[in-house]
This record gives sequence, C-alpha cells and structure tokens, in this order.
Amino acid sequence: MSKPLRIGVAGLGTVGVGVVKILAARREFLAAAAGRSIDLVAVSARDSAKSRGIDLDGVRWENDARKLAAANDIDVVVELIGGAEGVAREVVETALANGKHVVTANKALIAHHGISLARAAEQRGVAFNYEAAVAGGIPIIKALREGLAANEIESLVGILNGTCNYILTEMETTGRDFGDVLKDAQALGYAEADPSFDVGGIDAAHKLAILASLAFGREIDFGSVHIEGIEKITAADIRFAREFGYKIKLLAIATKTDGGVEQRVHPALVADGSPLAAVSGVFNAVAVRGDRVGLLVLEGRGAGEGPTASAVLSDLVDIARGLVMPPFIVPTSHLKQPAKANADKSQSAYYLRFNAIDRAGSMAEITRALANAAVSIERIVQPGEQGDTGRKPVVFVTHKTEEGSMRAAQTHLSRLEDVAGKPLVIRIEDGESR
Amino acid sequence: MSKPLRIGVAGLGTVGVGVVKILAARREFLAAAAGRSIDLVAVSARDSAKSRGIDLDGVRWENDARKLAAANDIDVVVELIGGAEGVAREVVETALANGKHVVTANKALIAHHGISLARAAEQRGVAFNYEAAVAGGIPIIKALREGLAANEIESLVGILNGTCNYILTEMETTGRDFGDVLKDAQALGYAEADPSFDVGGIDAAHKLAILASLAFGREIDFGSVHIEGIEKITAADIRFAREFGYKIKLLAIATKTDGGVEQRVHPALVADGSPLAAVSGVFNAVAVRGDRVGLLVLEGRGAGEGPTASAVLSDLVDIARGLVMPPFIVPTSHLKQPAKANADKSQSAYYLRFNAIDRAGSMAEITRALANAAVSIERIVQPGEQGDTGRKPVVFVTHKTEEGSMRAAQTHLSRLEDVAGKPLVIRIEDGESR
Repeated sequence: MSKPLRIGVAGLGTVGVGVVKILAARREFLAAAAGRSIDLVAVSARDSAKSRGIDLDGVRWENDARKLAAANDIDVVVELIGGAEGVAREVVETALANGKHVVTANKALIAHHGISLARAAEQRGVAFNYEAAVAGGIPIIKALREGLAANEIESLVGILNGTCNYILTEMETTGRDFGDVLKDAQALGYAEADPSFDVGGIDAAHKLAILASLAFGREIDFGSVHIEGIEKITAADIRFAREFGYKIKLLAIATKTDGGVEQRVHPALVADGSPLAAVSGVFNAVAVRGDRVGLLVLEGRGAGEGPTASAVLSDLVDIARGLVMPPFIVPTSHLKQPAKANADKSQSAYYLRFNAIDRAGSMAEITRALANAAVSIERIVQPGEQGDTGRKPVVFVTHKTEEGSMRAAQTHLSRLEDVAGKPLVIRIEDGESR
Repeated sequence: MSKPLRIGVAGLGTVGVGVVKILAARREFLAAAAGRSIDLVAVSARDSAKSRGIDLDGVRWENDARKLAAANDIDVVVELIGGAEGVAREVVETALANGKHVVTANKALIAHHGISLARAAEQRGVAFNYEAAVAGGIPIIKALREGLAANEIESLVGILNGTCNYILTEMETTGRDFGDVLKDAQALGYAEADPSFDVGGIDAAHKLAILASLAFGREIDFGSVHIEGIEKITAADIRFAREFGYKIKLLAIATKTDGGVEQRVHPALVADGSPLAAVSGVFNAVAVRGDRVGLLVLEGRGAGEGPTASAVLSDLVDIARGLVMPPFIVPTSHLKQPAKANADKSQSAYYLRFNAIDRAGSMAEITRALANAAVSIERIVQPGEQGDTGRKPVVFVTHKTEEGSMRAAQTHLSRLEDVAGKPLVIRIEDGESR
C-alpha cells in the first residue's frame, strides 16, 4: 500500500463536517478502495470553539485557511469556504501554485475562474476536482469528464437548484403562492435568508456554465448565460400549466447551435411524462444528449451534508487512486473560445399570461399585436376569475416561434392600454423525450 | 504526451464496429482527453470477408482472438465475443495473465467468473473494466466504483433488460399480448431469435449479480438470484395494473438485509410517479440508495451500438489516463463471501390473478385459502369478461405479506377445484420514492 494521502479541509460548514464524518466512519473501506489511507491532517474554519459533533483529535487547527495551502504535510486542499473571490480563491490558487491537488464544492469560483485555475493545475500536474460543485450527489462531472468522453454532446438540460424545485413543487402540490412557500422553505433551511441567489437563477447559472464548458469543449462563459428566476411564477400559472399537461420547472439549458452555444436559465413548462417533469422537491436532475449514448438522465439530491460530502469523497478517492486528468476533459489549451449563440433565432412555443381589461375589442387588439410580431396562437384561455384592478387574466399558448418575435410581442402587448404591465412569458420545452 | 495505448478488439459485432468507428471519428479528441493516443492495432472476428462499413487499413487481422491476448504490441484487449465460457473466457484469462488490461462488455462472463478474473487483474496490476456489461450507456459501474465510493449502499433497483422493457411498454401502449409484441420486437431487432435469455430474466440477473457485488462488497453470487421472466404477463394484467395506478416492469432488485443480500429479478407493479415507472421502451434505469447520497437514479439506453461502444470507450480512456483500480471497488481479498438472505421473510404487497369458476361459494373458498395462508386482501376485482374454459378472471391485491405466506397461498389456491392452474403472482413494489 502506498503512503497516505494527506488532506486539509478549509471550511467546516455543513459539507466540511460531512466530509470529516465520512473520512472517519469509512476509513478502512476508503483505504481499501483507494489503495492508501486518506488522512485528515488539518482543518480550518472561522470559529474553533464551535461544537460541530466531529472528533478533531490529532487534527491540526489553522485559523487561517491560507496556511493549509502552504503546508508541507498536505497533499490535497479541500476548499469548502465558498464565494468567487476572497479567501476561497486565494486558498485554491495558492494550493495549486504549490503543487497541491484541490477539491472544491465552489461553483461560483469555478464559474468565474475555472479555466485559469484548471490551467494552473495542469501546469503543476495536479488534480482540480469539483464534483460537489454541481448537483451535489449526482456524479454529473464524472459522467461528462469520463463516462461520456467518447460522445459529442448535443444538449444538456438540468434542474440544478433544489431550492427552486422545492418551491415550485410545493406551489404545485399545495396551490399556495410563491412568497408563502418561500417563507416555509426558509424556515426549513431549504432557502437562504437572502434567497435571491437561488430563486433568481444565479446559482443554477453558475452550475450551467460549468456543465456547458464540459459538454461543448469551450471555455466557461458565465457572462453569456441568459438568467431569469422563478419570482414571477404564480399559483395560477402552475394551475394553468397543469391543465395544459405541464409542470413548471426552473431549467438550465445548454444547446449547441451552428452559431455557438446557447445557455439559458429560466422557468419553463415541461411536458408531463418527460423525465424532468417528474423531478420533485429538492431533487436535481440532468438530461444529457450525446451523439453515441443518446439520452442519459441522472437524478438525485443536489445539496445537503450527505450528498455533497459524498461527491467530495469521490474526488478524493480518485486522487488517492492516482487519477489526474485535465479538469475540463481536455487540456485548457484545447478548449475553444466561448461563442454565444444568437438567441433571437431560438425557437420555442410559449406560455403568455397577463391581465387585460375585459371589454369589446380588447381581445382583437391583443391578437393583432401578436400577429404583428408573427406570433401565432395555439390556444387562448380566459378563466372566469377577476384579476386585480378590474382586469381579468388571459392566458395564451403559442405555436413555435422565434425568441426575437416573442420579445417583440411582449413589448407590443405591454404598450397596449388594455394590458396591465408586462406580460409574463414562459417557454414551453418539449422536455427530453426518450 | 505519453506513448500510445495500443488496443486489440476481439469481436466485430455491433459493439465492436461501434468501438472502431468512435476510435477513428474521435481520434484527436480522445488523445487530448487521455493525454496519449489510443491506437487500434489489431482486430479479430470470425469472418474477415464480411463488409462492416469500417476502415481497417493498417490494422492487423487475427483469425484467432487468442492471438490478441498474447500479442506483444497490444496493451489492452477489448473482449466483445460474448458468452461465459469458451473463447471469450480464454481470451480474457490469457490477456490478464499476460499483464494486459482488459475491457469487456460480457456480463455472462463476469456474472460467472468475475471475481477470479478480478483477482488475476489485481495480481498483475492491470485494469479489468466492464462498464459496457451493465446497462449500456449508463455509467452505473463508474457511479458505484467511483462516484458513490463513500457510501454504504442500502438497495439497488434496476430496469436492466431493454428487450423486456420494450415489450412491456408496447403491451401497455397498444393493449396487445406478449406473444404478438415479442414477434414485432424480433422483427425490429430488439429481441433475439431465441428470446429466452432476455424475456426469461437471465440477462437481467447476470447484470444484477454484478451490481449487487459492487453495491454490497461481496463476491458475485449469480446462483442466488431469484429469477422470473415476463412470459406470463398478459395484456389484461397490464390493464388491471394501470387501473390500480401501476406499471408492470421487469425489475432487478438487490437489498441488504440482516441475514444477507436478497437478489431478485421478476415482473413487478411499480407505482405511477415513481422514477422507474416512467422508464419506457428500450431504456434502462438504475435507482441506487446510499446512506450519504440518498436516492440516485440513472436512466439511459441499455444496449445498441452507440451506447455500448460509448461505455467501452469510457473504460479505454480511463486506462489511457492511468487509472487502475480494484475491479470490484476494493481488492478481491476484501470482498465478503456471498450471503443469501432468506426471502421467505421479505415483505411486499401482491397482485394475484387467476381464472375461477363463477359459482356460489367459490369466492368463499378462495378467500378462505388466502386467510389460511395469513394473506389479507386489500381489494378484489372481478371483471365482467369471460375467461377461457367457462372460468372468469379474478384479480386480488393483497396487503403487505411475507413471501413465504404468499407462496403458500399460491399453492393452496392452485389446489382448489374452482381455480384453473397456478395463480399468477406479481409483487407490488412501492417504487423508489424521492
């Protein structure tokens, strides 16, 4: 058996504690699986007095995480501090510069600096592993970097934020409205005190940018991700969607087009019966389509102590087994430059909801506005309910139309006197059919 | 860049041809991903004159696959001949003995000889990879050997035979009977001329035995798998199941119990809305439950040129990247001996269907027989249809009961004069709830 792999863990939040627990509980098994023992040498966190329910006897405590990145007795730094800048970035950069392997769960860091970090890792011949950064317990990074290495990926659609999926599922099952359910989710610990990162779609966009780079062999391009959150989805939207045979999900979508890569995070109507429509609660899922493998769907828990720590351990075992590969499948020098596809030409059917004054001629005006934008209507629903300010909700489902046309229609409609505010526009995705 | 990895492919059926195609089409990408080129040096198949639509210029042809296992210029033998014995076994054994890595798609070989082959691989320090042997394009071996290495696996439920799933899905959607659909499946190439291996559940059992070994850290125990096929499922069963809110699927189930490991392949009623109920057509799926990760579900194509060749390539890239690990996660010396759980105590609700004479008192006799076996009834359905020989079909759904009791009830019932033949008994699985 080779000499032990010596670990330093920076950050003892939920995930860090989970990692320490598994290293202790599965010590012998992991040593047998990896061919060498995986030893926790040092940890670092803000508050050394805090009780965390873990045994740190014989483990060095560092108040400054940067010390781990410089320590001579550490082979792998596990960065669980979080954040795209500051200490987390410094720790990872220093560790790599010092020729240490790095394992991280930090999606923001990778979305913003992943390529330069990968380059640093390649220069030193060390591993830069981040399975825990995307979709928690789902081994999607491993699937893309290793399992599907022989495939050209055509598209990737994910449910990548458990908070949003939990809220939407609760809205669906209870009929309650967004704000209400969000408060509960916060009480349950499924949503942060400041939920904007999650419900605004930014967290999902970080993860999507990472997956899109792996899928399409281009440098990460977080800035090009089109992002919409779920804040505007109402209980009524979910009810209408259900009537039409759909669930509303926050999807993260990356597609290869002739013009480049389209990256989008937004709520979408997903057809019942398609793999992603059934993904409920805090679960995440990713549907990848490869030219050889066809459709592959992975579903599991996207967050939490156990699933995320499980992913970190998988990265550690890989390193202990001697696996060092290019962090983004091929060396960074082989990655193509980002190329943002022109979304205007992207086609989709749409769900459209707004409040309109219920008077003779208003519907004629509305439908004319749609026709002028070259949007053709598949169905119109005017439920009996009275909306606010004397207006009534109107729901349209359109035929497939270009995104540019839909945006124009949205603008036209919002200018009409009879229409209150900006219409809510949600894409209808066919879902990934089997 | 390191020196090339030199490949010999034994067997040029569908999968072998797929492997050769990908090696050519993705040559540069694979070299970049693996850090060295992957070179096809030699192939072997029965008929060298056959046109296969692949370019074998510069590739050595061997009429005898065993030559590949002995060749000095080959680092990896890819065994795609098939069969648990004969040439396939000899090629793999010889290759390992000669210190060559082996990649195989041969589930029968592994189900019967996997542990001794793994031992041979470990002794020589070479890789023995078999991602393509189970569930085609789904990276389930990688998930268990690497992604979930930190977990204790609690249970594993799979749809592992695409032929059966295709037939059951077709029966569901068209209302046609087993024999009819089987004929179509044969015409379409989804079922073999001799379909018994697939529809009889043996193929799924081979795969289950491999997955169970990986999941529970015990030597493969194919002989202990309880196997039932789908031959007795009728269109009526599928209709009844649908009425009750279930799909009928051929499930492969491995569970850890106090007494050991339970391994079962049989048709089951799976609740609508659970992840496996939605898996349709030729798709495969595996739902694994780990103590840290919770439920993880992987779904994809389980067979065919592209998906299976994609899995073979994933194994080759791993080897090219220098990854050599114990074939069954931990060294064979660490695997526990097989321990078959006592299935009699295994609890489940059941679906029960048989034909009975429709006369006063017959139902009293039937329900008494069930009561005597300690089987309690949740519901009885007596559809209006006339069965053959003047008898009418009767369908029971039972409450949870021990398998031993159910078997006793089945025997009691088949002895009743009013009951025709042996009742069909199908387990009702809760499905893997999220």
